[in-house]
Amino acid sequence: MKLRVRAADIETPEPIVLLHTEDALQMGVGTTDRVRIEGGKPAVCIVTTADFPELRGRIAMPHSLLVRCSLTDGDEAEVHYSALPGSIRSIRKKINGGRLDAEEMDSIVWDIHHGNLSEKEILAFVSAFNINNSDIAEVAFLTRSMASTGQTVDLLTRPVFDFHSLGGVPGNKITPIVVSIVASEGLVIPKLSSRAVSSACGTADFVDTFCEVEMDSGSLVKAISRAGGVFACGNEDYAPVGSTIIKAERPMGIDPRPMMMASIMSKKVAVGTTHLLVDIPLGRTTKTPDIQSARDFARDMRELGSILGIHVECAVTRADQPLGRAMGPILEAKECIEVLEGKDSDSAVVDKACSMAGIILEMAGETDGRARAKEILRSGRAREKFLQIVKVQGGNPELKSEDLKPGRFTKDVHAKKSGFVGTIDNPSFVAIAKAAGAPEDAESGLELFRKLGDPVREGDVLFRIYAGSKVKLERAMESARSRRPMAVTEESPLDIPDRIVIERIPSKEMLDLIRFRN
Amino acid sequence: MKLRVRAADIETPEPIVLLHTEDALQMGVGTTDRVRIEGGKPAVCIVTTADFPELRGRIAMPHSLLVRCSLTDGDEAEVHYSALPGSIRSIRKKINGGRLDAEEMDSIVWDIHHGNLSEKEILAFVSAFNINNSDIAEVAFLTRSMASTGQTVDLLTRPVFDFHSLGGVPGNKITPIVVSIVASEGLVIPKLSSRAVSSACGTADFVDTFCEVEMDSGSLVKAISRAGGVFACGNEDYAPVGSTIIKAERPMGIDPRPMMMASIMSKKVAVGTTHLLVDIPLGRTTKTPDIQSARDFARDMRELGSILGIHVECAVTRADQPLGRAMGPILEAKECIEVLEGKDSDSAVVDKACSMAGIILEMAGETDGRARAKEILRSGRAREKFLQIVKVQGGNPELKSEDLKPGRFTKDVHAKKSGFVGTIDNPSFVAIAKAAGAPEDAESGLELFRKLGDPVREGDVLFRIYAGSKVKLERAMESARSRRPMAVTEESPLDIPDRIVIERIPSKEMLDLIRFRN
Repeated sequence: MKLRVRAADIETPEPIVLLHTEDALQMGVGTTDRVRIEGGKPAVCIVTTADFPELRGRIAMPHSLLVRCSLTDGDEAEVHYSALPGSIRSIRKKINGGRLDAEEMDSIVWDIHHGNLSEKEILAFVSAFNINNSDIAEVAFLTRSMASTGQTVDLLTRPVFDFHSLGGVPGNKITPIVVSIVASEGLVIPKLSSRAVSSACGTADFVDTFCEVEMDSGSLVKAISRAGGVFACGNEDYAPVGSTIIKAERPMGIDPRPMMMASIMSKKVAVGTTHLLVDIPLGRTTKTPDIQSARDFARDMRELGSILGIHVECAVTRADQPLGRAMGPILEAKECIEVLEGKDSDSAVVDKACSMAGIILEMAGETDGRARAKEILRSGRAREKFLQIVKVQGGNPELKSEDLKPGRFTKDVHAKKSGFVGTIDNPSFVAIAKAAGAPEDAESGLELFRKLGDPVREGDVLFRIYAGSKVKLERAMESARSRRPMAVTEESPLDIPDRIVIERIPSKEMLDLIRFRN
Repeated sequence: MKLRVRAADIETPEPIVLLHTEDALQMGVGTTDRVRIEGGKPAVCIVTTADFPELRGRIAMPHSLLVRCSLTDGDEAEVHYSALPGSIRSIRKKINGGRLDAEEMDSIVWDIHHGNLSEKEILAFVSAFNINNSDIAEVAFLTRSMASTGQTVDLLTRPVFDFHSLGGVPGNKITPIVVSIVASEGLVIPKLSSRAVSSACGTADFVDTFCEVEMDSGSLVKAISRAGGVFACGNEDYAPVGSTIIKAERPMGIDPRPMMMASIMSKKVAVGTTHLLVDIPLGRTTKTPDIQSARDFARDMRELGSILGIHVECAVTRADQPLGRAMGPILEAKECIEVLEGKDSDSAVVDKACSMAGIILEMAGETDGRARAKEILRSGRAREKFLQIVKVQGGNPELKSEDLKPGRFTKDVHAKKSGFVGTIDNPSFVAIAKAAGAPEDAESGLELFRKLGDPVREGDVLFRIYAGSKVKLERAMESARSRRPMAVTEESPLDIPDRIVIERIPSKEMLDLIRFRN
């Protein structure tokens, strides 16, 4: 049927078109059926029908789809019924408990990547591909399929180190420190981080305050050959299908483990990682609330790694409070650089950064990696490497922590009684920082003056809120008042371990090596 | 925000409303968010946004939703942001591999039944609740939750027998025969059947040609107390949430086992079944393509039954060709009644009906149920009972098979060579019968003159197509020409068993009893 194209700002990332009910009936299609649109570049889209009189004889299409089809408002298009894509059969098989092979997984990923599946269909796949209905080999197929949707980089060197945190710890600003320590030793570490999704500040958000984070694959290869490491932003160059899948998952607020593993590893496969350290924060509000689920996750990641040819180690870390003092882009950047400058800082940041870098150094053959990492940090070599990378990423090679200025509107929150900091609620602090404007307003955020177990006297400043405007400061105060971010108790909480790393889970290969040595 | 209601024929069974992009932005909601609509009866709906200028200041709502909200076109409504329903948390838990308890299952089923979840969310639940990510106790919770969405009937008698076929066998017209035999013995069997979903004729479709099939729960109780059995249509009185779930599954073409089990059993729970026989047709185009999957299914059904307090037995039956000669409402009704009248008929119909009825009789204590069933059929007692039930269901108590007249437009398909019927393709015969107009045109369908293994001479009539108009007859012939419903081969196929029941799988209780006896 010939229809007139109408551009419509239908809010949907899916290839949905709107047809008049009568036109659809004549064509023999209904809602959720597929139609093939010809006129520009052919595309298969999903039908929704409505009876707005102004739709008769027309096909309303979202702008993204018009671009894809090389059509513009007013063009004529030939619209026909089209059969379901073949990948639907593979998704059905998975829903019915079947096992998918590499080819079936490829067909699903290809159709997701090329916009041939609706969000509903993607969500059905993700929901079916759950922890009890998938095996590691299938996750590996999925990982490779996802990696193949984007560029792959060959850094022409081996080994290639990387690390990845599962997230859920506010203020986790260690990435530039770890990268700088590891690269100081001549190792290659092309670290790609992300921006905040639901947190107040992702690594890419705070790095963005002092150098460029967007980097195409050409610049990445060049930067690595010059400095050995980067702290860039993982972008759509690598396994881009991941972001389409995340968009489909978001309304349900899910990120099931097999899909999460494939998303993480597909980006590592794309940049040619050979050795990976995974940080698994343990806590009430992270993805692994108990030690057993952390160990299960570690075991699965190691197995997946061994299929993909990546040596994976895992470290289970504390996530009971924000890491360090600062939250928010500029504040976190400032604290990160202070640590590199050797300035007095919350020792937890130094502890976690050196523990993580240490494990990576040990993967490269060092015997006491943590001590070595501390030495590199203390000697100033890490800072030197950091500034070199900053320069390669287009930042100021003379950068100092004092250059970073947080928002000038501040408000202190005081203790109403004396005692000890008994509990800290991470989600409350995230909400307050976001209410202050983070991460969009880089200067906003907060600074903690007391941490878990610290003694407190009535009137002491517990934390300070920073914002770029009075309105946002007031909004953040409102958020702080309606929550309970920090509780002062009479007795100090007992169970605060002195190290951030609770448990280290070496790779299978490493375990074999240790057994062999003994 | 106050918005003017606009009635719109948006084709969706979900509680979706359409807002102008700007209005949505002002309200702080986006696509897939929830809004609460007040003005008439409050309801929570799912937002879709579009930028049609005519939408500004308005909220477009499907008619079904207007009715639910007691609003009409032009009314004013107050529209606010509304948080996600709590059941979403339970669905997330299932997607993440968790185990749901009765309360969590209730919340999901309640929200599906009350239109609080989108089809996307229902589909995500069904996909996650797959065979590898559910256990029998959860299926039992789901079954009870589903049963509680509709009426429950107490027939004030025990035991209550029932049987259920998983379907996939064209021409499976045994229901009225089984019910009549079983009820002849003074047993209670409130059999509720369904209309065709994708087949050419469901039991309710052919029963509808000679008596009333729609029956509310009051009439059901009365009919059972009079005649002991019915062959009515399972309607929205019992576990109505099932049809909402099926609507969400349909676009993906799925019916995963745990959900299918709960759907079947929720209707049995609603009518108080105590003893159930499940017919599991085995074949390339049924839900159980091999004997192992049939046995697995039988085991799960028996376990589910034992949790629900229902004695379940299963019979694995042949599904390699249509049962009997006739397909299509009037033709199947005619063949069914001929069997009850003792007229010469395809012996497979007698075999299957007496085997099934026989198993039920044995569940009630009979030693050789099949022989007893044959005797009841031969003696005319089954026919007497059948006519009594027909009368109770508002049909003619003098009904004869000759009263049923198929379509007067017919066409025969002849053999092009001599040999034997080597293969029969069920889906092709279903497609031809549907092309002829079945099940909507009750008089249309087809009649098979040769079955698997039968000798054939060139020019013999293989099957006859019946239709109510020349156009539909031609359409059916076109369908027959483009397919290969029946193949004549030189040699007779070897592996045709002489009994329809391939394997009988007794209930756990029955097995225990047998063990106890020996």
